Amino acid sequence: MKYNNIHCINSIEGIYGLESFKSTKSVFIFVISYTATSTIPGLTVAGANTDLIKYTPPADAEYIHYGMCKSINNIPATPDGKPTPAIITKTALDISNIPICVVDSGSEIKPILPYLSTNSPIGKNILDEPAIGYQETLQNYEMGKIIGNQMSKVNDTIILGESVPGGTTTALGVMQALGIDAFNKVSSSMPDNPTRLKNKVIEKAMLRSNIKFGDCSTDAFRAISKLGDPMMPTLAGITEGVISNGKKVILAGGTQMCCILAILYSLKINLKQKICLGTTSYVYNDEQSDICGLMNQIDEDLPIYYIDLGLKNSTKKGLRAYSEGFVKEGAGAGGTAIAAFLNKENLTQDIFLDKLDNNYLTTIEEPSLISVDKK
Amino acid sequence: MKYNNIHCINSIEGIYGLESFKSTKSVFIFVISYTATSTIPGLTVAGANTDLIKYTPPADAEYIHYGMCKSINNIPATPDGKPTPAIITKTALDISNIPICVVDSGSEIKPILPYLSTNSPIGKNILDEPAIGYQETLQNYEMGKIIGNQMSKVNDTIILGESVPGGTTTALGVMQALGIDAFNKVSSSMPDNPTRLKNKVIEKAMLRSNIKFGDCSTDAFRAISKLGDPMMPTLAGITEGVISNGKKVILAGGTQMCCILAILYSLKINLKQKICLGTTSYVYNDEQSDICGLMNQIDEDLPIYYIDLGLKNSTKKGLRAYSEGFVKEGAGAGGTAIAAFLNKENLTQDIFLDKLDNNYLTTIEEPSLISVDKK
Repeated sequence: MKYNNIHCINSIEGIYGLESFKSTKSVFIFVISYTATSTIPGLTVAGANTDLIKYTPPADAEYIHYGMCKSINNIPATPDGKPTPAIITKTALDISNIPICVVDSGSEIKPILPYLSTNSPIGKNILDEPAIGYQETLQNYEMGKIIGNQMSKVNDTIILGESVPGGTTTALGVMQALGIDAFNKVSSSMPDNPTRLKNKVIEKAMLRSNIKFGDCSTDAFRAISKLGDPMMPTLAGITEGVISNGKKVILAGGTQMCCILAILYSLKINLKQKICLGTTSYVYNDEQSDICGLMNQIDEDLPIYYIDLGLKNSTKKGLRAYSEGFVKEGAGAGGTAIAAFLNKENLTQDIFLDKLDNNYLTTIEEPSLISVDKK
Repeated sequence: MKYNNIHCINSIEGIYGLESFKSTKSVFIFVISYTATSTIPGLTVAGANTDLIKYTPPADAEYIHYGMCKSINNIPATPDGKPTPAIITKTALDISNIPICVVDSGSEIKPILPYLSTNSPIGKNILDEPAIGYQETLQNYEMGKIIGNQMSKVNDTIILGESVPGGTTTALGVMQALGIDAFNKVSSSMPDNPTRLKNKVIEKAMLRSNIKFGDCSTDAFRAISKLGDPMMPTLAGITEGVISNGKKVILAGGTQMCCILAILYSLKINLKQKICLGTTSYVYNDEQSDICGLMNQIDEDLPIYYIDLGLKNSTKKGLRAYSEGFVKEGAGAGGTAIAAFLNKENLTQDIFLDKLDNNYLTTIEEPSLISVDKK
């Protein structure tokens, strides 16, 4: 499906409108969370196996900070070795010198680094029970608003990313409850998107919750509480806090961020000219999901920018896999890469790819060869 | 005792050198912690009674955020009702629109707001056992460095404050171990500074630790581990992280911040033209402590700025008490007030006092009369 206001930032015309998000006062806020929904077999490969899934969010955060993980020995990867998109995020932040702030909004494992705690519970398996209590949903939203408000006093642009394994399924659930037809439209880190399984999980979870399509269109918090995950209210709250200060937000992610937008619209927050969605070309070009089909139901005018990182030309097989339908996006990869191109003068696709390949070499292939900068 | 480089910011000449700390990109980092040393009877009145002492740091943080506390029903105060210096900090941040970031570095009670967690243990009673493990001391320092590094990528000036009841006693201990004669020189929130008791506690703790005066002059982490508190390595680490990025630090506090400076000198960190100490005139003029006597032993040239807030003219008895030797400083009050005068054009003592009195009225005397801004 097509969408009215989507632009590839690699073409000159694509930059149109994006300039207003450029600022030397930018920060990346990375919200990590956990939903036990991710333990449903076949739903996610974010993490080499089911036991490791819960380590993926903190390990992503650690990798971006340290170029290595501390909670686990390896870098988060798919079972066959495709690395976490956090490697793109790390490269983008290194190049642009944009700081990162990790927010724990219900991660089961806490990262070994300083992180902003929101005191959130972890998310439960929505097949069995509500994801998170209604009051806790409201509380996460309030915590998010405080974070957004404080962070945007100095900063002009807040780039928001997330790491929640299984998060596209909860996004699907919340969008259905809000009246956005999202079946077969949310993305996957696998080339073979398990859309049927996701649809079935959500149908069952909606039946269990006694929620029908669109039932929560005026009560987003109920949708999140019953079918979502703890990241959602926090990230929506941060966005509100930033926008109410008159500052700007880049939602860095794929179809999960469409869900955040749907939540914000349901809350009647005026997003006009304050927000954009930034993602990778791998999400935009994906034939097994439909970000444009989602956006057409949410807003007809909110800008989406996507970036072609040229990973098909990478010297690393694990990175070339991104152009073959693996991983695609996550951990704020697309949005932070766009911010890097926006804020770093003379940055080209070749320079970015070269740095990315080098990060792959020094942190994944041969981490023992270099001394790791622990800052 | 006199000190070469101390200036009252209320006089025009006093501003000399301070201008370099002025920036619209300033942030206040408020480190909260706990030391069980504070339970020694008579050592502190930060908190209305011994049971409440551990609630003071989170309550201070909540008060600055919300204008009310959430962990306890009342505002932290001395037993006879003198309010926490956090009321000055809140007023200063409100006026200057400087954001706050709360760092939990071993607070026993966690604040009900988003806070940066460093995963620190709480501090133990140094009369009985080491304050914090040596490895944990190093880890807090590393966490601090990460925070300082990230926060100073966008921000130019980092204002650092703390809330640690009993913290002047642990500061005394660490300074003695570092070879700074601090007996009878650290400040107190009471007009009748229990210096004899503090000296005695430290003598005993040093005996227990088998540490003599100056024994740790080249191993500050050992001094902190044996005699300090968990705030110290984190705050020192933040300072190092900021300075290594070429940015500036205002240490917002009294004699406890002298201890931080002594730690930084022991670690051989070059502070030249990167750091100043900002405090209140109530600390500078205190006859029962000696901030200049401490500074003369640490550095002969590092600038100290103090501010006269004119609290003797307050319409509120609880605030006038500050000019009568009560409370004096804490929670970053002096340093944030100086930052407010530095960054807010045309701010006068009268305007500040008026806003402070009004905050006292609306948040302490008659909090029920106004709707509290929960942002």
